[in-house]
Amino acid sequence: MDIKTYMQSVGRQARAASRAVAAASTDAKNKALLAMAAEIRTRQAALSAANQRDLEEARANGLEPAMIDRLTLSEKGIESMALGLEQVAALPDPVGEMTDLKRRPSGISVGKMRVPLGVIGIIYEARPNVTADAAALCLKSGNAAILRGGKEALHSNQAIAECVRAGLAAAGLPEAAIQVVDTTDRAAVGELITMPQFVDVIVPRGGKGLIERISREARVPVIKHLDGNCHVYVDEFADPAKALAIVENSKTQRYGTCNTTESLLVDAAIAPAQLPAIGIMLAGKDVELRACPASLAILRTAGVADAQLKEAVESDWSEEFLAPIIAIKIVAGLDEAIEHINTYSSQHTEAIVTENYTRAMRFLREVDSASVMINASTRFADGFEYGLGAEIGISTDKIHARGPVGLEGLTSQKWIVFGDGQVRS
Amino acid sequence: MDIKTYMQSVGRQARAASRAVAAASTDAKNKALLAMAAEIRTRQAALSAANQRDLEEARANGLEPAMIDRLTLSEKGIESMALGLEQVAALPDPVGEMTDLKRRPSGISVGKMRVPLGVIGIIYEARPNVTADAAALCLKSGNAAILRGGKEALHSNQAIAECVRAGLAAAGLPEAAIQVVDTTDRAAVGELITMPQFVDVIVPRGGKGLIERISREARVPVIKHLDGNCHVYVDEFADPAKALAIVENSKTQRYGTCNTTESLLVDAAIAPAQLPAIGIMLAGKDVELRACPASLAILRTAGVADAQLKEAVESDWSEEFLAPIIAIKIVAGLDEAIEHINTYSSQHTEAIVTENYTRAMRFLREVDSASVMINASTRFADGFEYGLGAEIGISTDKIHARGPVGLEGLTSQKWIVFGDGQVRS
Repeated sequence: MDIKTYMQSVGRQARAASRAVAAASTDAKNKALLAMAAEIRTRQAALSAANQRDLEEARANGLEPAMIDRLTLSEKGIESMALGLEQVAALPDPVGEMTDLKRRPSGISVGKMRVPLGVIGIIYEARPNVTADAAALCLKSGNAAILRGGKEALHSNQAIAECVRAGLAAAGLPEAAIQVVDTTDRAAVGELITMPQFVDVIVPRGGKGLIERISREARVPVIKHLDGNCHVYVDEFADPAKALAIVENSKTQRYGTCNTTESLLVDAAIAPAQLPAIGIMLAGKDVELRACPASLAILRTAGVADAQLKEAVESDWSEEFLAPIIAIKIVAGLDEAIEHINTYSSQHTEAIVTENYTRAMRFLREVDSASVMINASTRFADGFEYGLGAEIGISTDKIHARGPVGLEGLTSQKWIVFGDGQVRS
Repeated sequence: MDIKTYMQSVGRQARAASRAVAAASTDAKNKALLAMAAEIRTRQAALSAANQRDLEEARANGLEPAMIDRLTLSEKGIESMALGLEQVAALPDPVGEMTDLKRRPSGISVGKMRVPLGVIGIIYEARPNVTADAAALCLKSGNAAILRGGKEALHSNQAIAECVRAGLAAAGLPEAAIQVVDTTDRAAVGELITMPQFVDVIVPRGGKGLIERISREARVPVIKHLDGNCHVYVDEFADPAKALAIVENSKTQRYGTCNTTESLLVDAAIAPAQLPAIGIMLAGKDVELRACPASLAILRTAGVADAQLKEAVESDWSEEFLAPIIAIKIVAGLDEAIEHINTYSSQHTEAIVTENYTRAMRFLREVDSASVMINASTRFADGFEYGLGAEIGISTDKIHARGPVGLEGLTSQKWIVFGDGQVRS
């Protein structure tokens, strides 16, 4: 069977299964999720063996250590897949929720009902645990899913897929509700993203290159997460202790996450007073400071070593460093801060530190990013911290879903009308 | 200037203006809308003259009467454009609305704020009043807009555009907030739908051909309205009087609208009892009945004239007739009705007529369409009837906006976080 025929068959089966999953009861979906978790625990040895095969091939192919790390499924990793499935089972079912009912002058009552999107295509890279996580979120939100993992993780993904299928079967749900593509042919991705008749939305999880390519070529809507060039703006009226703590946490708690701050903006009025302590704190943690001329002068005077200071260049304002590097700019005030962010940010997450109410509210309203915060660390931009219970990704789009995407982002709302024989006049 | 350069310049100006409009106060936006309405009334003679020029050219080019009709701007039509602007001014401003605030264990409060999408591209055909309607909805929802009307309406649209610009200027808003493309070159549409750096969403309004072409070629999300193949299902437990009234209104109140019913499904158990009256009512209004063999037999026995009866063919189940024609099928019960609708419907609007609670709720939940109704006419699927106050179109998509799209559909929600110095642990 050629790839096109194979993917069309996968798509057709997913579309058919999606109706059964959309109509499935909360009980059936939870039963499937708990059965999947039990299967994963029961088959732990088989999962380890499959993962071992992937790891041997990866080492033979000379994959880099970071990739090997993401590919590795430890005993603990297997247990957390099972726990993750159980956590999703415990979340409220979003499907069928009726809201916003209003009675209209015609006598009908109009409202909305939350419904699944249909078939979701997930495209990801080396991490095999995404197979279980994505399966859980798609199923609980009443969607069928087509999962396409990285070729490095093929055996691990297939072993997890067996547990998923067993769980679906245990709950009497169609096994085609969650399909894991079992070819490593890259053409499968090209087919998956160009079958609007079978796939309603694509969620790519991976590097910026993968996501840009998929967005460019897809004929299906894509919920995409590009980069996270997050900002903290320390306003003229910032509390110095809060500013120091928020910059420290936003930049240095973890360097590799998308909600890590990459640029610091400081109001000129308090830069001489507040920037020294911030600079010394960052330098003490071996963060490289790429500073504008004005902040460079303040940081030098404050005693930050030249080895950790560098004059910022234009490209630093747009860069997602994902490393112990921060860009620093002194701005004339709130207007320049907002203008700078709306120009250079990737519209992921930005925070202001201020005690001034009006400035805080202007920042909240005028900054055009998926998450905008007052006096809090950008590291909070996360599905779990926001209370979504789980997260399929963080969207930097504006259409449909913005910011952390949980079960709700995998659903839509239809209009519902309750009448008693009304007709339109 | 070539078309690409021209459209890029329009796009760049729209993007810049969109920030000012997003931050504009409700007062400023309403002031602009009311000033636009006043300009339209003041310049009524000039608008009529511009429209007359378009009409003369249209007649010279031999445009069909229906197109001439859509192009015509009567005195009454000009007054209703002005009234429409005033109605949008009177609607609540959706921008900045904060909802769903919840306190999290970390101490932060997380919620959502409604925000404009940015720049909206509207592509439409002959009706010049869309220029004023779309301008009003985009401005009130805090968006910049690029409007591209049909070439037949060029002079009318430019005359309306002058009123729009005068209104923006009167409120101190940038004139580039609403731009009307002033070239008739079709390449302008191709450029508009492939500038994701300047345009956030495209709303096409027009025939299915236009919308399909735009959806296929766009590199920007499209809120699309394809066809309306709406269904009424008369269930075994239907109240006969309600069934008759709802079928009559759904099919015959207006034949050319997208929420008109095109297919009637009747439960086999009550078809012999209820279909005769429905068939005679429809035949009495000169509606052609394209019936499945079983319904054909009942209708013949009931005395419906052969001239109005035709055996349905497969393509009738998918057809949007937009005419006094209805497809009729007898189904074995609710399951077959839902299966038929989910197979053939364009997912616009469907209604069940039943007194049975469980069947009504199953229909509501399992039918996968933008609007699903119990005991009400499909003709209610409309932004005004739903209480949206105005409507930019009806979406048959599932992503972002579904069904009638009002001001809310032209906005998104960002996450907002209120903290007091919290950092993530």
